[in-house]
Amino acid sequence: MRKFMDENFLLQNDTAVEIYGAVRDLPIIDYHCHLDPRAIAENARFRSITELWLGGDHYKWRLMRHNGVPESHITGDAPDHEKFAAFCATMEHAIGNPVYHWAHLELKKYFGYEGDITAANAAEIYALCNSQIEKDDFNVHSLLKKCRVEWLATTDDPADDLEYHRQIREASIPGVPKVMPTFRPGGALEIEKPSYVDYLKRLSIAANINIIDWESLCAALENRLAFFSMMGCRISDHSLEPPVFDPKATDEDANLAIRKAIFGAGLTQQEINAYKTRLMSWLGGEYHAREWVMQIHMVVQRNNNTRMLGLLGPDTGFDCMSDRSFSLALANMLDDMEQRDALPRTVLYALNPTADDMLATMIGNFAGRGIRGRMQWGSAWWFNDNMPGMKKHLITLANHGLVSTFIGMLTDSRSFLSYPRHEYFRRILAGQLGKWVENGEFPNDMARLQKIAGDIAYYNVKNYFTDV
Amino acid sequence: MRKFMDENFLLQNDTAVEIYGAVRDLPIIDYHCHLDPRAIAENARFRSITELWLGGDHYKWRLMRHNGVPESHITGDAPDHEKFAAFCATMEHAIGNPVYHWAHLELKKYFGYEGDITAANAAEIYALCNSQIEKDDFNVHSLLKKCRVEWLATTDDPADDLEYHRQIREASIPGVPKVMPTFRPGGALEIEKPSYVDYLKRLSIAANINIIDWESLCAALENRLAFFSMMGCRISDHSLEPPVFDPKATDEDANLAIRKAIFGAGLTQQEINAYKTRLMSWLGGEYHAREWVMQIHMVVQRNNNTRMLGLLGPDTGFDCMSDRSFSLALANMLDDMEQRDALPRTVLYALNPTADDMLATMIGNFAGRGIRGRMQWGSAWWFNDNMPGMKKHLITLANHGLVSTFIGMLTDSRSFLSYPRHEYFRRILAGQLGKWVENGEFPNDMARLQKIAGDIAYYNVKNYFTDV
Amino acid sequence: MRKFMDENFLLQNDTAVEIYGAVRDLPIIDYHCHLDPRAIAENARFRSITELWLGGDHYKWRLMRHNGVPESHITGDAPDHEKFAAFCATMEHAIGNPVYHWAHLELKKYFGYEGDITAANAAEIYALCNSQIEKDDFNVHSLLKKCRVEWLATTDDPADDLEYHRQIREASIPGVPKVMPTFRPGGALEIEKPSYVDYLKRLSIAANINIIDWESLCAALENRLAFFSMMGCRISDHSLEPPVFDPKATDEDANLAIRKAIFGAGLTQQEINAYKTRLMSWLGGEYHAREWVMQIHMVVQRNNNTRMLGLLGPDTGFDCMSDRSFSLALANMLDDMEQRDALPRTVLYALNPTADDMLATMIGNFAGRGIRGRMQWGSAWWFNDNMPGMKKHLITLANHGLVSTFIGMLTDSRSFLSYPRHEYFRRILAGQLGKWVENGEFPNDMARLQKIAGDIAYYNVKNYFTDV
Repeated sequence: MRKFMDENFLLQNDTAVEIYGAVRDLPIIDYHCHLDPRAIAENARFRSITELWLGGDHYKWRLMRHNGVPESHITGDAPDHEKFAAFCATMEHAIGNPVYHWAHLELKKYFGYEGDITAANAAEIYALCNSQIEKDDFNVHSLLKKCRVEWLATTDDPADDLEYHRQIREASIPGVPKVMPTFRPGGALEIEKPSYVDYLKRLSIAANINIIDWESLCAALENRLAFFSMMGCRISDHSLEPPVFDPKATDEDANLAIRKAIFGAGLTQQEINAYKTRLMSWLGGEYHAREWVMQIHMVVQRNNNTRMLGLLGPDTGFDCMSDRSFSLALANMLDDMEQRDALPRTVLYALNPTADDMLATMIGNFAGRGIRGRMQWGSAWWFNDNMPGMKKHLITLANHGLVSTFIGMLTDSRSFLSYPRHEYFRRILAGQLGKWVENGEFPNDMARLQKIAGDIAYYNVKNYFTDV
Repeated sequence: MRKFMDENFLLQNDTAVEIYGAVRDLPIIDYHCHLDPRAIAENARFRSITELWLGGDHYKWRLMRHNGVPESHITGDAPDHEKFAAFCATMEHAIGNPVYHWAHLELKKYFGYEGDITAANAAEIYALCNSQIEKDDFNVHSLLKKCRVEWLATTDDPADDLEYHRQIREASIPGVPKVMPTFRPGGALEIEKPSYVDYLKRLSIAANINIIDWESLCAALENRLAFFSMMGCRISDHSLEPPVFDPKATDEDANLAIRKAIFGAGLTQQEINAYKTRLMSWLGGEYHAREWVMQIHMVVQRNNNTRMLGLLGPDTGFDCMSDRSFSLALANMLDDMEQRDALPRTVLYALNPTADDMLATMIGNFAGRGIRGRMQWGSAWWFNDNMPGMKKHLITLANHGLVSTFIGMLTDSRSFLSYPRHEYFRRILAGQLGKWVENGEFPNDMARLQKIAGDIAYYNVKNYFTDV
Repeated sequence: MRKFMDENFLLQNDTAVEIYGAVRDLPIIDYHCHLDPRAIAENARFRSITELWLGGDHYKWRLMRHNGVPESHITGDAPDHEKFAAFCATMEHAIGNPVYHWAHLELKKYFGYEGDITAANAAEIYALCNSQIEKDDFNVHSLLKKCRVEWLATTDDPADDLEYHRQIREASIPGVPKVMPTFRPGGALEIEKPSYVDYLKRLSIAANINIIDWESLCAALENRLAFFSMMGCRISDHSLEPPVFDPKATDEDANLAIRKAIFGAGLTQQEINAYKTRLMSWLGGEYHAREWVMQIHMVVQRNNNTRMLGLLGPDTGFDCMSDRSFSLALANMLDDMEQRDALPRTVLYALNPTADDMLATMIGNFAGRGIRGRMQWGSAWWFNDNMPGMKKHLITLANHGLVSTFIGMLTDSRSFLSYPRHEYFRRILAGQLGKWVENGEFPNDMARLQKIAGDIAYYNVKNYFTDV
């Protein structure tokens, strides 16, 4: 029997241990996360382990709800120590869940706690963590330094003034990672939402261009693209639920749709699709012209619980996977860009692992142009960011393509304590590579294995985002 | 090499053996099956092992058909011993199939046969089994006692008079499990079927209410809900193929649909969906008010072989998985109930394992309200009730939620010999828990492990169905 | 640690080794491939290992594109040795990919090279292979003899004159496998394609029947069916993207559709579906009457990259899996044939492994009629033809049916070097059977295990295609 989460955690054989040794201490590039740039700019500190762990983490909230913890002790106003105790009690039996491993890795990494998270240990852990959180050097910058984060990309709205990004860039503190904004123009795409017209107003103000039609929309977005580019942005992000593509749509159709929406008229599904088709097509070209990377997230079914959406708002743990079909629309959308020589390097993510094999073959449709790893099937994400999910991702990618060109792990997290997920990933990666070798499926050539592991853990992503 | 199906079958390590020891002898609660209440009331006996095994078991029939056995020796009029021999010959090469394991577990458990099922052994096994079946104490009650079945829930039509349930309750024989009816109002929901109007007549008679419109339909169903409740029912069951939800549907639309159907007019798909939307919404509220559990079975594609349907009727082995999308309609249907504070505790089952991850995250959308395990993703079912299916279910559930709150196994069976499937499940459960521990992914804390295993095997389900 | 790809490659235990020993040297029946009959008739020779390996193999091309190799060195006009070097450099890090294993197996089998494929070894391998390719006895016939290919089935158009098949049959060279044509009438089914009317002209000429309506179409196809039958054909092939079935379609609808198409009028989706429904229904009956096997390939999404389609044409590496739903249409289509007692023995293939469980249960809907293995779920195919894909196929098939009736492996290949894929499959098969036994899930009865393995590797397929 292997020891519980010891130094060889997930490294099932000597080959894996040796491979892991070569990637363990590599820097981290976190090319997609939801960290708050203000907290980085202001080098925020924290009230307690409860704020740090339970302040905004819907992964943990969901588990507590499954365990019958009342909402008062999850997102409500129960005292910090009671919430923390409820979380520890939930962990005690959370066998097989990634949060169980993340929580233990985080306690070890940031607080030196090597024990078990149980109801009985809750008070002890709470005291230990808070005694360290109180110290002056426990702040956002020290947390990021501790994990050797080289750069990270937050997720930002085109209407944002990126004031905190500016402050971080200007401060340029040694050891604090570069922080890059990500251009996520969902508000401008989602013409079917009630918030659309208000969003155009925000965007108009940010761009200082009055958006009244298709032309002025593109002008305003171009203004923001240029501003984001100046602020270091090299990556965009989209959540397409679902991707749509209408081959017959024209810019005139898109113009009609936007004018109807501003006028307050209802739009048909066809008009909505025409608008989205043209806007994504235009945006893709803009990203390509700027040598940005385009990220597309898919098959998320959001805000399924209207009651809780009303009480807590979005991103509070009431989303799930969608099972709808999207392979044809996605291919058509990418093909439209590729035909115009306007397809950027692209990362495709699906929340439902039923799309794994399809996406791993989809990227082959647009691989080429002499660019290594041009198209990426993004890391096992959100609900799939767990051990079987990451193993399946690596195996599936290896089967259908070249896993050695993979740009690897991201956190997608809102938490400054989430960087041990990169450790988790690197252990799983080393474990899988080691397993292939131990099974006689690949030569026991340690230099080559460490090269592959290092590329996936760090060097591929470093090369993928040019000019950072 | 491990011995063939010995006492440590599926228990790959010492940890698994020790965990299994704690759940092996726990009672069984079979909260969803298709056993015949009359056979229980009358303590039926059996003609032969052929009747017991091949009388109504479409799992076995399918395998025999794959093996080229003529229908005369499956559902036809061949002599019992010839049918049995044909089955044994089919088993001989059925490597990797769950029926192979079930059959061996059943022979061992009920007949003490520890050998191999092969064509050569068929006559010997046939004689052995029948010599025991002939004995006076080989009957339904002794079979149920042998497996420590505490209670079980049959599947019943709202129009049923539950006469046999009444007899069982009144007899109240020590050692014979409690038998609870399940309310399965499919006949009232399936307005698109030719049998609908006749079904309303049956229901009218049962309820003594003449169903002529929406109001009288609800009144009749309310009558039956009250009757079932009085007869001990605490659970409903639906096979939704597929779930539908029309947010604009009103009770007036449902009323129009039912009146058109009674009048014999054809219904549009929209009218059908409106009717089903409103009726499921109403039923959910009724279940919730009674503190019943709602079961929903999905993505079954039934009666694919019209020729055999004509010859043998439904449930004879000609169903398969469907691959249609249903995540959005299902979420909307549950959300509608939750918004009205009318969502009962719910168990969701999908026949196609492509829905596994989606459902494991779907239940998170409606977890909460301080109820531990409120929403359940039901046990690997029917075609998924096999070793890889059960392992995948446990691992997927653990990854996306709390497997320790899972209510565990059911038989879904028509056979009185099917209770060793609980043994199969408990072995797989212990094996998986042991594997996590042996891999260093969870502490080797035997008390905690046995608690988790015991909860999943018995205590969770005991607590889930209140007031049984 | 196991040695890299030694004689016990993929055989993880002694049981597997012993099982493999019984199937290793069995002949090969390749019932579905895309080999060029002209090359067989003319006993073609080859220019270099580059032509042999990279001349038409889109599997390899895709990997090279992922690796950033420019198109000049993939399908372009770079010198042979440079292309080969670019491929070897791609292989060097292709851990976990089936092409990596196939390439090593092929070098060992055909050229005796036992080393590693790397950039550094490229020149040495290139010289070694070409020195053998130059020899007189290195030709198509010797390659086929080397792998004991008993017969193979190419894929052919009904309008083809099968001239090379005739030559092969007449030459009847000892040791050269029988070569059977396969009837693939896609051109006649795809009425929505611009090429349809031209195709009808080709077919008219081949059949010497002027196709002007439904009746003459059927007459022309009947002519070709008879001709193919005379030429040894016993199998048809369809790529249905997707299967469609309209229960209300009549031959008159089909007649209207064909006449409109010939006239140049646009067709509605309903007209297209009616035509396809009736034509598949008619073809199924024809296959059944001739005791042919019907193959159906599904959920392929072809030609996703319009730019590369224009440059290179189809089948050049720009296809992927589709995720659309098809279970209902497929079942209805097969049911229509079965109701008329006209369903041939059928092999169903899906490119997306999400369909695995569904198809494994779909074949149960139409199993029976006393024919062992009547309905087949076809071998893990194209993107799924890899180790995890084949293992999953075997396990899934075993769970839902009788793996012992499986007709096993095919190459689906355009390459005369692809027969080691049968070795790969047989090793995986032996490995999986051995694993079941070593885990105590099946008796350690070597005669039975070798019988099962031999049936799957060779005897089942030999019996499935009658009268070859």
